Amino acid sequence: MDDKTRQQSINDHIKKDPFANYLGAKVEIIKPGHSRVSLVIDGNMTNFHGTTHGGIIFAISDMAFAAACNSHGKVAVALNVSICFLKPSYSGDHLVAEAKEEHKGRRTALYSIKIFNEKTDKLIAKSQDQAYQKDEWFVDK
Amino acid sequence: MDDKTRQQSINDHIKKDPFANYLGAKVEIIKPGHSRVSLVIDGNMTNFHGTTHGGIIFAISDMAFAAACNSHGKVAVALNVSICFLKPSYSGDHLVAEAKEEHKGRRTALYSIKIFNEKTDKLIAKSQDQAYQKDEWFVDK
Amino acid sequence: MDDKTRQQSINDHIKKDPFANYLGAKVEIIKPGHSRVSLVIDGNMTNFHGTTHGGIIFAISDMAFAAACNSHGKVAVALNVSICFLKPSYSGDHLVAEAKEEHKGRRTALYSIKIFNEKTDKLIAKSQDQAYQKDEWFVDK
Amino acid sequence: MDDKTRQQSINDHIKKDPFANYLGAKVEIIKPGHSRVSLVIDGNMTNFHGTTHGGIIFAISDMAFAAACNSHGKVAVALNVSICFLKPSYSGDHLVAEAKEEHKGRRTALYSIKIFNEKTDKLIAKSQDQAYQKDEWFVDK
Repeated sequence: MDDKTRQQSINDHIKKDPFANYLGAKVEIIKPGHSRVSLVIDGNMTNFHGTTHGGIIFAISDMAFAAACNSHGKVAVALNVSICFLKPSYSGDHLVAEAKEEHKGRRTALYSIKIFNEKTDKLIAKSQDQAYQKDEWFVDK
Repeated sequence: MDDKTRQQSINDHIKKDPFANYLGAKVEIIKPGHSRVSLVIDGNMTNFHGTTHGGIIFAISDMAFAAACNSHGKVAVALNVSICFLKPSYSGDHLVAEAKEEHKGRRTALYSIKIFNEKTDKLIAKSQDQAYQKDEWFVDK
Repeated sequence: MDDKTRQQSINDHIKKDPFANYLGAKVEIIKPGHSRVSLVIDGNMTNFHGTTHGGIIFAISDMAFAAACNSHGKVAVALNVSICFLKPSYSGDHLVAEAKEEHKGRRTALYSIKIFNEKTDKLIAKSQDQAYQKDEWFVDK
Repeated sequence: MDDKTRQQSINDHIKKDPFANYLGAKVEIIKPGHSRVSLVIDGNMTNFHGTTHGGIIFAISDMAFAAACNSHGKVAVALNVSICFLKPSYSGDHLVAEAKEEHKGRRTALYSIKIFNEKTDKLIAKSQDQAYQKDEWFVDK
């Protein structure tokens, strides 16, 4: 398997995320360690205050994180996530989460995720996520 | 409005959480500052590794947090959340998130949320959540 | 080496923490996974606002965490720490950090640390700390 | 007071940090919202494993954060900090923490702090810090 086919096979695996597909989130792997997830918010994705649900904002951030930390083909799982909420957003808004690799060690790796509102171009949340990389590959090494 | 009616009106408001209802999560306010959310995981709520999606685990934790910090009737919003993931869970599992108030200041309040797998009775995630309390009530003071 | 001698040797090792001794912090292992650190704040331990320095509050929390996660004799190191600051404290105050084990897995373990002001008996900060346990012991297994 | 004198007076206030001076940390305000703190590690700043103490790494990160969030002249205090530890460092190493403002709202502000080891030029820790800005100035508005 050449590098391009291998990366395609990694990306295909990551895009088969049931919850992402259920919500209608679009997952892109820009390059290994760098990904983007976008989602248009609808009424079902809001909370009792009438703003986008924290669970939705976290979900797209987590999808970007999972795509970035698994994009090398090794099974990586979340150890911990710290997310700060900065601004409310609403049904109809188009949110984009972008994950970047800050550090990749032997066992753990660190990602920074920024969540933007495309309409206002404002940062609405920011997350710092740490992954554990297992000794296990989901594509051929 | 007597205290019981007022609390009932707070609880009714909190339970009208569109995303909770969309997922089928059950939200309970045990008493002010203390809440519980439960959800049975289905195939749509999993990730590409085949385990419960981090976004789902966070969502029920966040619903418990939101219920607890808003259960006094004052509008409270999330400032930041730190969640540690401890064990995987799977489609068919019944997850329960329980939120407890650790501190309630004038402006901010702190909650500890434990997420259990009912089947195995194991802690699968734990979260520490900080809320900002606005000068605004969603029921009569 | 019997269990009591072994635990004593673990505790002795933990108490030889140069920074704890430099600050004058008192470290106690209550039992494996449970520890307490106390420190009287002096003028050198404050910030430019005149309150106890965040670095000092974190330090005693971190010392309690390190004592708790290493108290089994296996080398454990911090992966990540999330600390929420709730109340200011001042020079002359006596602070106490108490760490409790919330989860101990094969690789990672989770601790909850509460930092109290003895004078007011108020919670002034709370921390959620995750450790990585190496395949390495600092006393005989 | 002109802008330059005012900023000088802010910077002077921030540099009078007793704990920073006690440890020998050098605090620089590069521009409002952007700061750097450096410190050479000595034997008193290590833990019982023989590496730089987490409390020291946090302390310089916290000093950079405090400098950045107070550099506008308004009193800002830490709400919460999430720090990930990536690599050990040792007595004799020269550590540098650099804080950058990611978001500045009306009430809260967010900072990203990277802690480097000058000797190896490696990222050894990364922190995400949220501040609360009081309605209070420590220099003339």
